[in-house]
Amino acid sequence: MPTTHLAGPILVIGTGLLGTSVGLGLSQRGLNVWLIDPSPSAQTVAQDIGAGTIHVPGRPLAPELVVVAAPPDVTAAVVTQALLEYPMSTVVDIASVKGSILEAVRADARITDEHLARYVGTHPMAGRERSGPASARGELFTSMPWVICAHAGSRGDSVKTAEALAIDLGATVSRMNAQDHDSSVALISHFPQVASSLIASRLLNAPGHSLALAGNGLRDTTRIAASDPKLWIQILSHNAGALVPILRGMREDLDRLVATLSDPTASGALLDLAQLMGEGNAGQARIPGKHGAPPQAFALVTIVVKDKPGQVAKLLADIGDAGINVEDLRVEHSAGHQVGLVDVSVIPGRREELITVLSALGWKVAQ
Amino acid sequence: MPTTHLAGPILVIGTGLLGTSVGLGLSQRGLNVWLIDPSPSAQTVAQDIGAGTIHVPGRPLAPELVVVAAPPDVTAAVVTQALLEYPMSTVVDIASVKGSILEAVRADARITDEHLARYVGTHPMAGRERSGPASARGELFTSMPWVICAHAGSRGDSVKTAEALAIDLGATVSRMNAQDHDSSVALISHFPQVASSLIASRLLNAPGHSLALAGNGLRDTTRIAASDPKLWIQILSHNAGALVPILRGMREDLDRLVATLSDPTASGALLDLAQLMGEGNAGQARIPGKHGAPPQAFALVTIVVKDKPGQVAKLLADIGDAGINVEDLRVEHSAGHQVGLVDVSVIPGRREELITVLSALGWKVAQ
Repeated sequence: MPTTHLAGPILVIGTGLLGTSVGLGLSQRGLNVWLIDPSPSAQTVAQDIGAGTIHVPGRPLAPELVVVAAPPDVTAAVVTQALLEYPMSTVVDIASVKGSILEAVRADARITDEHLARYVGTHPMAGRERSGPASARGELFTSMPWVICAHAGSRGDSVKTAEALAIDLGATVSRMNAQDHDSSVALISHFPQVASSLIASRLLNAPGHSLALAGNGLRDTTRIAASDPKLWIQILSHNAGALVPILRGMREDLDRLVATLSDPTASGALLDLAQLMGEGNAGQARIPGKHGAPPQAFALVTIVVKDKPGQVAKLLADIGDAGINVEDLRVEHSAGHQVGLVDVSVIPGRREELITVLSALGWKVAQ
Repeated sequence: MPTTHLAGPILVIGTGLLGTSVGLGLSQRGLNVWLIDPSPSAQTVAQDIGAGTIHVPGRPLAPELVVVAAPPDVTAAVVTQALLEYPMSTVVDIASVKGSILEAVRADARITDEHLARYVGTHPMAGRERSGPASARGELFTSMPWVICAHAGSRGDSVKTAEALAIDLGATVSRMNAQDHDSSVALISHFPQVASSLIASRLLNAPGHSLALAGNGLRDTTRIAASDPKLWIQILSHNAGALVPILRGMREDLDRLVATLSDPTASGALLDLAQLMGEGNAGQARIPGKHGAPPQAFALVTIVVKDKPGQVAKLLADIGDAGINVEDLRVEHSAGHQVGLVDVSVIPGRREELITVLSALGWKVAQ
């Protein structure tokens, strides 16, 4: 059984995708996990797939840690209730907004400084396009950032317990206050979500012959537009204060762009377009790479493969035999044909070697 | 030598990424290709990598087909010149805007109906984030749509020759008029490009601790923001008429969203957010899948792998041995850890079998 930083027992309140994944991950590591959900079927599914044991309200329980995995709208109320009901426990929530929840807990008349000291807001940066306990997986948090938002009154041992949860689930701990967290996720998560929905909305009445030409550019920019509205309207409304200034900034750029494109032969128009595109280049280049590597740290090699069982596997086996690690891999989408292009990312120092090896083995490397 | 629909010789004017790729692909199929580029170094690189032979201006040449692969800004002038200079040849261009080029060619006083009859505008929907002849590849157009925009005065045999070019290069022919083409690419290509640049621009002054939390949502929505501004300012300005109405539509949605989020507790605010997200869901669901399959036709299986050489290869070899075809594959980005998640897409009917096979072989399948 793997060693854990938590001792348990842990009570997970809310057995949706994230709560059930927390329960699964901790149970798989040998910890004693209890589950509660207002939906009897949800908590039964969670128990059935091994996320823990259903806790019957009223039965005595003294958890080391209570994990509140409720929808953002009710998180503050559930945290408050847990702080009152489990006087020896650290209570964390895992909602994707932090400031409004801390404020609401603090504002409750029943909550004293002692209660508040045991509360730590946290946010695991993980999720799936699907929801519900049946989509849960114990490895959901593996290698993902998990933000720990201690507040000025947080007790040291409670902060340690919150961090132990993240570490035991294989996540990477990141520390910042609630305000920095909320402005960060507004920019890197909530804003792209909204922008992706805005892009995809334009496709509603598009002719089929237009959509048939869609490539990876459209697919990539709209992928997260498939996200669940029920969850997102809560997130967006709870973090509206941080999100609105970013959207206003985008609107200024958009207004400028519409004005420029309305008279594209005017003096300065091309310069203006070039500036917008250049700012996009520079902004994109700031996004860190995998494993925190510098942006664009990997070199790309493209290989033409037949689209039939085993071809991509054979290709990767050959790469593996050469002792070269595949850092990222992308099968290029296409329409109508049974031949595909596979983009393989490797560290730049191995690129030439990879091309040589694959070409020698008869692979069609598209330089 | 493979059989081709073209007979050759073919003259490629412009040896950037696309022109050189056309030359490479046709040469690899045994056709006789001639190259011209205003840049002596570009045409030499193209010749050196096997895209064809440099054509010395003035020497006699009677090409079956002239492929104009010049930047959009000069395409009409080069097409006009080619129609005048090669009176027996079909002339196609491959620029990503079509209406403005057709108009400009037609407007030239030297161009008669006979000249115009030999011109066919085309647009291969292919490209790379990199540019220049050194990035060219003969398989660039494999399985990609290639739009053929015959005009009312196009000669039948010239249209056939244009289609033969696309077919010989492995592309999938799509037919529409210039106006439908331009409004289609405005929506599925130019608009996502601009939107991606607008998103990425917001990252210019973002704190490092915010960017460190970036996940695939931000990466996917901003990937094409890395595109080359020099090319794009020409495309955008040439297709401004089709693009502006789409951008105005987005601005209306954005205005409504900013108003809603400025008072998120107002009556109807959540409904409004849900409607925006719902429209995004519906729009995204209309994008056709790979091979023209219905959207979201594939089932996803996620596997946890050690991030070291050969692991992804071994996984795919096991999948291949089971006779199951990998339709798409994605390595999930993460930061700080040496464990990765691999999302494998398969046809839904094989999903359960795949999970069973992989689990039996000791792979950690995350649901």
